[in-house]
Amino acid sequence: MSTFKAHINIMPLEALLDPQGKAVTGSMTNIGLPEISHVRIGKHITLSIDANDKKTAEGKVEEACKKLLCNEIMEYFTFDVEEVK
Amino acid sequence: MSTFKAHINIMPLEALLDPQGKAVTGSMTNIGLPEISHVRIGKHITLSIDANDKKTAEGKVEEACKKLLCNEIMEYFTFDVEEVK
Repeated sequence: MSTFKAHINIMPLEALLDPQGKAVTGSMTNIGLPEISHVRIGKHITLSIDANDKKTAEGKVEEACKKLLCNEIMEYFTFDVEEVK
Repeated sequence: MSTFKAHINIMPLEALLDPQGKAVTGSMTNIGLPEISHVRIGKHITLSIDANDKKTAEGKVEEACKKLLCNEIMEYFTFDVEEVK
């Protein structure tokens, strides 16, 4: 049994407005950074998985995203899994 | 003038409790994934920067993190910047 670490990004779907990101984009000008635009804000999640191999670990992460972490109506997820030595 | 895209991760400091992550770790067992533990939840932010070169763009992103995006008392940030062709 090995331990793996997953890094997951969950972002609002491109087709949807991201009101939080919109508000932050507006604030950038106010703090003197008008060069910054198109701010989108999502979640970054790290977690540990006990599994026999990387493929199994990836399957568990995908299951966790679909069942619990990501609302696929409004968000999409990407992740990568690495073995912890 | 080029356009750059930044990917920023903002996570709760390791020394601090992450109550949201703790709660999600507990839920993993309930949905049949007891192999998953140590869930920590932060923010993932993407944004565009107009700048002459990558170094300037990185400076702008660091400034945005310190001034607005990251509360350095409770969180730390990491980011990477790439040029958009």
